[in-house]
Amino acid sequence: MKTLLEAIRPTTFIESDKLKKQLGIDLTIASETFQITGSFKFRAAYNLALNVPNDEIVTASSGNFGQALACACEILGKKGVVVMPETSAQVKINAVKGYGATVDLVDTKQVRREDRVQQILDTMPNAYRASAYDDSFVIDGNSTLGKEIANYKDFDAIIVPVGGGGLSSGIIKGLCEIGSSIKVYGAEPLLGNDASRSLQAGEIVANEIEPMTIADGARTLSLGKQNWAIIKDGIAGIIEVSDEKIAEAMRLYFGLANLKCEPTGALSFGAILENRDPFKDKKVCLIVSGGNVDTEVYRKILAG
Amino acid sequence: MKTLLEAIRPTTFIESDKLKKQLGIDLTIASETFQITGSFKFRAAYNLALNVPNDEIVTASSGNFGQALACACEILGKKGVVVMPETSAQVKINAVKGYGATVDLVDTKQVRREDRVQQILDTMPNAYRASAYDDSFVIDGNSTLGKEIANYKDFDAIIVPVGGGGLSSGIIKGLCEIGSSIKVYGAEPLLGNDASRSLQAGEIVANEIEPMTIADGARTLSLGKQNWAIIKDGIAGIIEVSDEKIAEAMRLYFGLANLKCEPTGALSFGAILENRDPFKDKKVCLIVSGGNVDTEVYRKILAG
Repeated sequence: MKTLLEAIRPTTFIESDKLKKQLGIDLTIASETFQITGSFKFRAAYNLALNVPNDEIVTASSGNFGQALACACEILGKKGVVVMPETSAQVKINAVKGYGATVDLVDTKQVRREDRVQQILDTMPNAYRASAYDDSFVIDGNSTLGKEIANYKDFDAIIVPVGGGGLSSGIIKGLCEIGSSIKVYGAEPLLGNDASRSLQAGEIVANEIEPMTIADGARTLSLGKQNWAIIKDGIAGIIEVSDEKIAEAMRLYFGLANLKCEPTGALSFGAILENRDPFKDKKVCLIVSGGNVDTEVYRKILAG
Repeated sequence: MKTLLEAIRPTTFIESDKLKKQLGIDLTIASETFQITGSFKFRAAYNLALNVPNDEIVTASSGNFGQALACACEILGKKGVVVMPETSAQVKINAVKGYGATVDLVDTKQVRREDRVQQILDTMPNAYRASAYDDSFVIDGNSTLGKEIANYKDFDAIIVPVGGGGLSSGIIKGLCEIGSSIKVYGAEPLLGNDASRSLQAGEIVANEIEPMTIADGARTLSLGKQNWAIIKDGIAGIIEVSDEKIAEAMRLYFGLANLKCEPTGALSFGAILENRDPFKDKKVCLIVSGGNVDTEVYRKILAG
């Protein structure tokens, strides 16, 4: 059985001279688009599936965590059940099924995903309830990316997409464990700016409904409790990114860096497009969290 | 002044479990889409511009070599002039200009690119005439990729896109220099199958006109003489790839591997789609030579 570090792939660092020239900022991309299952979530999911004693794992996921958990369960011989919103990208639904996991589609306007998970757990008493972000195994799995980034270059700042806070808290924890002082900024959709509001309020603030941003990996109601405990003091700031800037970032990645990414993955670059001033003269790492996007969605975004 | 190995980026190796599963072949991608200027051509161009004594360099190129040469000239403080067909992708034309080189657009139905280069050279007596492929500096530059691939894994076969033969001859030479016995297969557009016909004839056979394949990096009349001298005995075979299979390969890369590539870069995967039998049970490296493709061309190909 492979350890976490044996199972994951190292992230892909991309230096794009054209991006640097166009933005006037010393940018490096840390792309998880070529990670197993196409997003960073495999780091979290494998670590979780490897370490929980249960043979059955149930989760709610907008797609990438579900796919990653399904793959990890397949590798480790466990049973995975994934509750997904009906609005999830079709490629993500198909991918979860392809790894042999059970997909449970839910109309999130009728039933909250978390409530549906509880309904399923009532019929599977020996299953582990896995949060895609609010879980220490998830945070520890994601911390590996923070360490990789710190070992690659002496960055001044890392910008990381924020949904439930699983990746950002993991990055902060990973950096902390190796004594790195790189600043971590979160980038979240303007349409679901609960993390920004939470930081201002000093406590977790939730969106009333799942925000319908194109960044479908960040359609979360709020930060997780364990994530918040790490983020509230560990993050240098949260930048709110409009869907227009997310799309523009995707087009620039395509045209200048030959990088295909999903909307959520483009949040970190979108943050720079919203306001580049704080990052002038800094060495900045943009985390691209994943690459899984429906063809038609991508074609529409490319058309501008 | 940076040496060649200091100036280039290592290739990006991508292992896609989804591709492997779908094709039933142990595939690894060696992607040059993140190389400086977005294609392998920078290896060739930098090596050439670094080693020729001339301060002015003139070339004919369907785009990627021109862009790479323009970038290398900018880095090394030399003047580049690039003759390009009017039908070249607009992104490639713009990129050459962006590096400060002079672009000379030619209607290849009226004047052969090589003739236009000669016209320009008549006015620039101290300039070096750089072939995008038929040049020992080009071949030596490209040989670095062969060595990288051999050092990465014990492959049985490498499949490489073929236009003028600059990359394939470079790979063969690089492998030869380190005593590697990995077999090298060329993948060329069916619409411009001169390399395949050359191999059958035992001598260089040329296309009558520049073939209008979507693989615009392989719209060459024939193999170069220096390339042919290496390829004729060094290549294990040439596989002819239809434009349909090139497009299918691009869609599969997008959907299964999160990889954006240009049509020419997809030739090697297209070769597998044409006939996978010779590669069953083999460890195969697919070279993706570049990623620069116009947005509208890419959108059309994605639509299928």
